[in-house]
Amino acid sequence: MMKEIKLRLTDVNACNISNLESIFSLANGHVGIRATNPITSDSLAGTLVNGYFEYSPIVYGEVAANYPKRNETIVSLPNLRKIKVMDEKHREFKSARLVDINLDLLSGQLSETYELWNVDKQQINMQVTSYIDQEDVQFFGIQYTFIPISYSSYIYVDKRFSLDEDAQHKIAMKIDDPRKTRKIASIQRQIVTKTRYRQTIMVDTAESNQKIYLTVYSYKNDQPLLSKLTLNKSQTVTYQYNVSQKNTLLDKRQIDWDLIKSHSIEFWQQVWQNSEVSITGNDELNLALHFNIFQLNQSTGRDGKTNIAAKGLSGPGYEGHTFWDTEMYMISYYIYSQPEIAKKLLMYRYNTLDFARNRARQLGVNEGALFAWRSINGEETSAYYPASTAAYHLDGDIAYAIGNYYEATHDDDFLAQYGFEMLLETARFWRRFGCWVNKRDYQQFEFHTVTGPDEYTVMVDNNYFTNRMAQHNLRLAYRLGKRLSEINPRRFAKFNVSTEEMDDFVKIADHIYFPFSDKFQINAQDDTFFSKAIWPFSHTPRDKYPLLLHYHPLTIYRYQVNKQADTLLADLLFPETITAEQLKREYDYYESITTHDSSLSRSIFSTLAARMGYMNKAYDYFLDTVRMDLTDLQGNTEDGLHLANLGGSWMSVVQGFAGMQVTPQGVLKLIPHLPKEWEGFNFRMVFHNRLLNINISGNQTTISLLDGKPMNVLVNDKSYHLEKILKILTKR
Amino acid sequence: MMKEIKLRLTDVNACNISNLESIFSLANGHVGIRATNPITSDSLAGTLVNGYFEYSPIVYGEVAANYPKRNETIVSLPNLRKIKVMDEKHREFKSARLVDINLDLLSGQLSETYELWNVDKQQINMQVTSYIDQEDVQFFGIQYTFIPISYSSYIYVDKRFSLDEDAQHKIAMKIDDPRKTRKIASIQRQIVTKTRYRQTIMVDTAESNQKIYLTVYSYKNDQPLLSKLTLNKSQTVTYQYNVSQKNTLLDKRQIDWDLIKSHSIEFWQQVWQNSEVSITGNDELNLALHFNIFQLNQSTGRDGKTNIAAKGLSGPGYEGHTFWDTEMYMISYYIYSQPEIAKKLLMYRYNTLDFARNRARQLGVNEGALFAWRSINGEETSAYYPASTAAYHLDGDIAYAIGNYYEATHDDDFLAQYGFEMLLETARFWRRFGCWVNKRDYQQFEFHTVTGPDEYTVMVDNNYFTNRMAQHNLRLAYRLGKRLSEINPRRFAKFNVSTEEMDDFVKIADHIYFPFSDKFQINAQDDTFFSKAIWPFSHTPRDKYPLLLHYHPLTIYRYQVNKQADTLLADLLFPETITAEQLKREYDYYESITTHDSSLSRSIFSTLAARMGYMNKAYDYFLDTVRMDLTDLQGNTEDGLHLANLGGSWMSVVQGFAGMQVTPQGVLKLIPHLPKEWEGFNFRMVFHNRLLNINISGNQTTISLLDGKPMNVLVNDKSYHLEKILKILTKR
Repeated sequence: MMKEIKLRLTDVNACNISNLESIFSLANGHVGIRATNPITSDSLAGTLVNGYFEYSPIVYGEVAANYPKRNETIVSLPNLRKIKVMDEKHREFKSARLVDINLDLLSGQLSETYELWNVDKQQINMQVTSYIDQEDVQFFGIQYTFIPISYSSYIYVDKRFSLDEDAQHKIAMKIDDPRKTRKIASIQRQIVTKTRYRQTIMVDTAESNQKIYLTVYSYKNDQPLLSKLTLNKSQTVTYQYNVSQKNTLLDKRQIDWDLIKSHSIEFWQQVWQNSEVSITGNDELNLALHFNIFQLNQSTGRDGKTNIAAKGLSGPGYEGHTFWDTEMYMISYYIYSQPEIAKKLLMYRYNTLDFARNRARQLGVNEGALFAWRSINGEETSAYYPASTAAYHLDGDIAYAIGNYYEATHDDDFLAQYGFEMLLETARFWRRFGCWVNKRDYQQFEFHTVTGPDEYTVMVDNNYFTNRMAQHNLRLAYRLGKRLSEINPRRFAKFNVSTEEMDDFVKIADHIYFPFSDKFQINAQDDTFFSKAIWPFSHTPRDKYPLLLHYHPLTIYRYQVNKQADTLLADLLFPETITAEQLKREYDYYESITTHDSSLSRSIFSTLAARMGYMNKAYDYFLDTVRMDLTDLQGNTEDGLHLANLGGSWMSVVQGFAGMQVTPQGVLKLIPHLPKEWEGFNFRMVFHNRLLNINISGNQTTISLLDGKPMNVLVNDKSYHLEKILKILTKR
Repeated sequence: MMKEIKLRLTDVNACNISNLESIFSLANGHVGIRATNPITSDSLAGTLVNGYFEYSPIVYGEVAANYPKRNETIVSLPNLRKIKVMDEKHREFKSARLVDINLDLLSGQLSETYELWNVDKQQINMQVTSYIDQEDVQFFGIQYTFIPISYSSYIYVDKRFSLDEDAQHKIAMKIDDPRKTRKIASIQRQIVTKTRYRQTIMVDTAESNQKIYLTVYSYKNDQPLLSKLTLNKSQTVTYQYNVSQKNTLLDKRQIDWDLIKSHSIEFWQQVWQNSEVSITGNDELNLALHFNIFQLNQSTGRDGKTNIAAKGLSGPGYEGHTFWDTEMYMISYYIYSQPEIAKKLLMYRYNTLDFARNRARQLGVNEGALFAWRSINGEETSAYYPASTAAYHLDGDIAYAIGNYYEATHDDDFLAQYGFEMLLETARFWRRFGCWVNKRDYQQFEFHTVTGPDEYTVMVDNNYFTNRMAQHNLRLAYRLGKRLSEINPRRFAKFNVSTEEMDDFVKIADHIYFPFSDKFQINAQDDTFFSKAIWPFSHTPRDKYPLLLHYHPLTIYRYQVNKQADTLLADLLFPETITAEQLKREYDYYESITTHDSSLSRSIFSTLAARMGYMNKAYDYFLDTVRMDLTDLQGNTEDGLHLANLGGSWMSVVQGFAGMQVTPQGVLKLIPHLPKEWEGFNFRMVFHNRLLNINISGNQTTISLLDGKPMNVLVNDKSYHLEKILKILTKR
């Protein structure tokens, strides 16, 4: 286990100070708190609650039938870090400069130092220490320590909420970038209780009709929210917050600062014990990787009713919506390290099934369910269907995650209560959405007018990725349906699935058509992809990327150009469907036309390249992936972290460099590829109720069974029996 | 020549009284006045000026690069027909019921009778007679005659403008139907001069910054706008309006009522002389056909700066925008009867070339021009690109009309000044927009991600219609470019066209790919059309049409279903490209999947069927076409007449039943097919500076040369020399 691992100011790209707010944010899956400047930041910025959103009407330039009618936008709550400091003449210390910050990834402690000045340029320093409670998720604790520098009289410290009306407008960001968020006028904020020692503010969303209470109080009751401190020596004041969707007017609990701290430390100990991934021989990458896993854990809803937003709880970008990112980029980490969280994430989808059934009807499909492409509560909110609703593959993505979760846990109870129903409803969707096409001497099943993961090509026929996901989904519904009918026939009977329907799932799956290029001898992204001209890359200046911000969609769509992995993602998910030779051709072709304009692209290119032994490429893409937010590679870390990519960096190491897969027969398999730049790497994982430590160093792979019964593993396609520890010679 | 032809109340579907406002509207290409109830209608409704619009920002649910930023909406001007009538106690006659209305299609006189009641249920009658000036297009004359019925004391008649603020909101229609219009907040209306005899109102659009002045005055200066009339006998008051975009504060001209009337009569005499189309043996259809031509003439801009809106000047539907309708459905009538108007319509496009060049750049095409899919002034305003901007075929449609105009007129001056530049810029667009695709042993030229006329399939590759139009456009640019270089080499040189570029036009045209179904042996609408499932027509209730109002676009797009003719329209435009046998197969196939949800569909099916000798189908579609607005077939005549279909009914008769075409060699050709239901039909047309009368009756076709030099004509592929009159036996 590590001794210390801290992210410091010098580890990040601080050119844009707003990046720091995202990077050093604290969260516990419920509340997220951006590391805003406590003195100068807006009074209504930086605090988000998972699942707490407001509706607003979607206005279309031209509307059509069955379009979503309302947006959902995560609400910017009053700033929990804000503090007002005044000198003896009641003049504010209005200037504040961050001079140091570090985040302890082992304990969750955020430590900051600010220099403060009043108008006379007299200085004091302020150290801020904070923890978010990882167990009692309503609580957040913050300590401010004031140190006299060139000012040493007494000061006033005001920790009451301020409701600055102007700030309500400032929190709005530009809405003409679809990756940002919008401002909402229908949110009311008001102070509901106010004593010297305790203040509660209520935030009320008029349209979604949800209330949130935020209460601040000092840790010791004898310390009022507006305090006078004498500054001949350092003075510390400690505050706690309670942020709750329950009525905190009744809940006056105040917990010990030390308890918040110990909840945090215990939580992170547990996380690292089950899922630490470390790199030996490159401290910078090792730190970045820990940071990514730390932040992924912070942003993940753990209650089965909330999920992971595209920016997590680190920023309001993408309006706090959940996308396919969860199932394709983040849930793998949880399935193989904290399967109970993976289950909660899947239960979130289960809880949105009624919305999904209704959405399928709106799309003219009379059976099954279509999950929402972007949403907070599960209701579709996307205002641009070609790159959202048409991405039907989401159904298959969710099914894929259900299958993986089940394979890794054999959680029959989940299968019976939640899993099979989702597999069934998605399989039903594919069955009714697709159609049989008569060819000269056979029939094939096709899916038309769909959009794959690569949103630079939309509304095409037979997107290879989509067809693969549908096939897998249909087969899973059959296979796990059979399993359920054996282990729990009464439960299975409740779903009214006929033998004919189950058989039809298999028949369709077996007849799904996959486009293939005879010319290139590779899978074709869709029926017409290769007939298009290749994007004129050599005539495209660097400042015209990402293309979607500079070219009309119709311009982009008429070329062969990929925003992110599409067919290659299918190749990664279904390694058994492709030969090594074809995969190389395919990788080379698609890589040559991919811009990586999406933050979801590079991790897939890295993971797949590592699997293939394309080590230089794997490593280069990994460098971009693992440090994406620390270097602000996408240029928009200020809006929040790129959560999918955080998960993607875990995939690069575990599923890429270690080549961890589960075979269709349910056996854990490794194909280690150690980058030549490293001495080694090490990771923990959970599989079939066992805790494993896997170490790949030099030319040796060591698998240790830390907890659980013996098991078989495949390493480089050779089977081994793992009792306690297994050392295998593997090529570098 | 006809003696009398009047449209009466009994000739129309009056279930929805608002239909009458469209049907009985008066217009002169500049001002349009809906036949609103003069007593009960809104004070801000029913008056439109061609080209007079206001901007408003387009709000997108999710915006992307290079989307149009602003709408253009035709402005609803103060109601010119409105009048207030009060009894001796100053109580308004507030109830008014239309009891009779007729429109004299030979003189342009609109005559109405209303019954008026005050609160005591005392009745007077009001007869309204109006003309719009067809020569001095600022003027409109209206006469009100009051007849005592159960009230016979004096009355007050108030003809002053009223600026009812409430009404400004009422004029707004729902905007969630893209076929309607929107309300605009930025329009100011104010009374600028006011005397007892004369009142001027100014309408000012804040965003587009255009002013309109409307002046009302009584015909005789001794009649104030607020008059007291004694009602012991009928009393007539006459008013005139001057509606002008010039400053009418300076223009105090008042013209004689009889002059307005004679301008109207002379205009219609001239129109019918050059373009009358009549049917013998069915008065109802004969009347409907006259009505269509009458209304088409009323709505057509004649100044080279205005065009024909989708609803003409008969209603604000489609926001007053001009579409491809002009070139594909309406200009043929003008080319072959009033070529000087056809020229003006093409000059409108010429005047928008700078917008079109800019639009091509925004679509990533660095040469040439792309005309606006929907616009008033030529700037693209469509907020839904899949069914607008992607309809690149508009460029080819305009080129096609230019070619036809030139063939019918040999107007070399037009070619040099306007025509060739448009052909060149559109050809350049196609050249740069499309791409060469390498096939095994040859190269072909393709166009990707386009939408054809049928908007129920969008963003496909190689739409057959689009490719045909592009081919024709490229060839025309070459051919008429060569012609220009011979007749006016100096002018030609100004365009900087290299021999290489001209040759490339031909090379591309010769290598354009046309999708074809080997299975069905017909032209394929696009590369993937036949792989889709056929729309489940048998499971679609009647009330779910038009599909676009009831199904999500993605639902519609994934099926084989046509809103309107697409490939068949190409077959109609390019008869030389298809054999009779294939055309029959093609017609049958596409007809079976066409909903005719667009008012632009049936006229094409009728015209093409008539050409093919499918007489029952031709006739049935013609019945729907020719009476579309009189029967309110589409259910939305209240928003305005279906202008393209008005032109389409002329096409059905002249280009369908008479089979009038111009061969690629420039020879006029007829293939008459007389419907068995008629005794005969007769039409006039202008061609190569000659006026012809063509009569098809029984088994004889008679062509009379009314004016101009002898010429050759082809009838049923046999060549004849026409000196003065030609009688040819043709099969029924």
